[in-house]
Amino acid sequence: MGGDFGPRVTVPAALAAIRKHPDLALILVGDGDLLRRTLATQGAAEGGRLIVRHASQQVEMHDLPSQVLRKKKDSSMRVAIDLIKEGLVQAAVSAGNTGALMAIASFVLKTLPGIDRPAICTALPGVHGHTHVLDLGANVDSSSEELFQFAVMGSVLTSAVENKERPSIALLNIGEEETKGNDRVKQTAALLDASPLNYVGYVEGDDIFEGKVDVIVCDGFLGNVALKTAEGVARALMQFAREEFTRSPFTRMAALFSRPVLRAIKKRLDPREYNGASLLGLRGIVIKSHGSADVLSFLRAIEEARLEVEKNVPELISRQLSAYLGTPQ
Amino acid sequence: MGGDFGPRVTVPAALAAIRKHPDLALILVGDGDLLRRTLATQGAAEGGRLIVRHASQQVEMHDLPSQVLRKKKDSSMRVAIDLIKEGLVQAAVSAGNTGALMAIASFVLKTLPGIDRPAICTALPGVHGHTHVLDLGANVDSSSEELFQFAVMGSVLTSAVENKERPSIALLNIGEEETKGNDRVKQTAALLDASPLNYVGYVEGDDIFEGKVDVIVCDGFLGNVALKTAEGVARALMQFAREEFTRSPFTRMAALFSRPVLRAIKKRLDPREYNGASLLGLRGIVIKSHGSADVLSFLRAIEEARLEVEKNVPELISRQLSAYLGTPQ
Repeated sequence: MGGDFGPRVTVPAALAAIRKHPDLALILVGDGDLLRRTLATQGAAEGGRLIVRHASQQVEMHDLPSQVLRKKKDSSMRVAIDLIKEGLVQAAVSAGNTGALMAIASFVLKTLPGIDRPAICTALPGVHGHTHVLDLGANVDSSSEELFQFAVMGSVLTSAVENKERPSIALLNIGEEETKGNDRVKQTAALLDASPLNYVGYVEGDDIFEGKVDVIVCDGFLGNVALKTAEGVARALMQFAREEFTRSPFTRMAALFSRPVLRAIKKRLDPREYNGASLLGLRGIVIKSHGSADVLSFLRAIEEARLEVEKNVPELISRQLSAYLGTPQ
Repeated sequence: MGGDFGPRVTVPAALAAIRKHPDLALILVGDGDLLRRTLATQGAAEGGRLIVRHASQQVEMHDLPSQVLRKKKDSSMRVAIDLIKEGLVQAAVSAGNTGALMAIASFVLKTLPGIDRPAICTALPGVHGHTHVLDLGANVDSSSEELFQFAVMGSVLTSAVENKERPSIALLNIGEEETKGNDRVKQTAALLDASPLNYVGYVEGDDIFEGKVDVIVCDGFLGNVALKTAEGVARALMQFAREEFTRSPFTRMAALFSRPVLRAIKKRLDPREYNGASLLGLRGIVIKSHGSADVLSFLRAIEEARLEVEKNVPELISRQLSAYLGTPQ
């Protein structure tokens, strides 16, 4: 139900997903009447691999996670996560309030053995390929042990969804020299150095969009600021482009000629092209879609969920952590 | 002497600065022979408002600050800062190693009364105007008291160089709600709320390039990652543009038509257009130029120094801190 557009986006995306993937069955959770009406406008109906599950409440973007937990037990978000817990589905996808989704998922599903806190991870585009970055804001002030767990989770996810045997892992820092950074970062580097992970050292903010390492690990405060800053720069550039291309008849003509090129550039940096952030470290698969996702990018988030189910990412994380730390499974 | 280009950039910029500002006198510090030769190639010579001061050493980009302090006491960077201490000049401008510059400046000049740690501050471009951001990496793990001092320094600088009476101050956070963030951020918000500063609340990473607030305050780790991330995104976009505009004869023609527009867009986000970061909180004015600065942007850094001298920014910071906290001057 969530996101900026609700069922207008999620229903067509769900229909596209089950058409594209014959192994996929979906439960649409939300206002049952609205969902059925939206299905009808698409010439579709409930049945077969597509089921509607009514939920009487909805989590709003401004709702506080703590209040959602107490007062919105029949929200579409809560019901969808409960379905994982009950074993009726293997993953949930939401475009709603990130804080509420993280709170519900943590409360209902709990973290995996050996994981103290879940983290949010997504792939970001770069010049030489894309990079999985975590944590993007589930936590603030993570300890070095937690940052190490994020590294394991990021490594497992990237290995599973990209079929890379030993993804390269880097730590976000304010310099590449070993002497730089705060104590937490230095302690995390020591843990990573001593681990079997393919740890390659420190990177700086501008390396995120270079795409030279597979996974970048950081505190959620840093990750969130980096992600939002990137969105801000991209938005500013788009705005500058709009202004400069409409300055005179000549620049308007240039814009006309350049339109396909500009669209291609925008597409390569568009966060919706990389839609589907993973809430990692939970006993279940939960995918957060960008609130402004359109049909194609919400489909992309559903496909991320499907891929993580196929690879059984939570089980892989458990196994790898256990191999490294001797954590009981 | 510093930066990627050395005297080839700094000497012409110095000549342009004294030509443009009849009230300005400059001492060029570095390899005396090289500086005089470079002056000669520009049809200029030492004398009048332009003096050459020889220094036998040079700080390299990879030099560790601690070693520079001990072993490079006759480096151009150290000599330039010493000149401030000796009262021979009122400000120093360098395009060299930031860490070394900060270490030398802190060691030689000391911080102002009431300031625990200096911070790096620069203006960044945005859709609706520019924003001064600090700290950009002089410190990691700043306390809420230090963050509050940064806010005072940013407010004073912006007020002085932009002639704004009460610049708006915001704190960088991972959400705009009061419940978001870590303890340090929340404690800083409380200090700002209780102060006479024009504190407007939390902003997120994407607000940096909106330009809706005058000053954004953050820990140096966050500020550095945000700045570098922004540079990385801009670089990735330029690379994508290069690739997309050279894809076919048609796109090459579009590039030809769009060249003036693309150049205008690039200029608006080019960090060199905003060259001249201030090392705030010291008993003296020190300006850090981008290492890749060209003549025009190094001139911009010299002019930033001149403006801060004219306004006497360190004195203003002292006075404002003292007014807020009763600090002895």
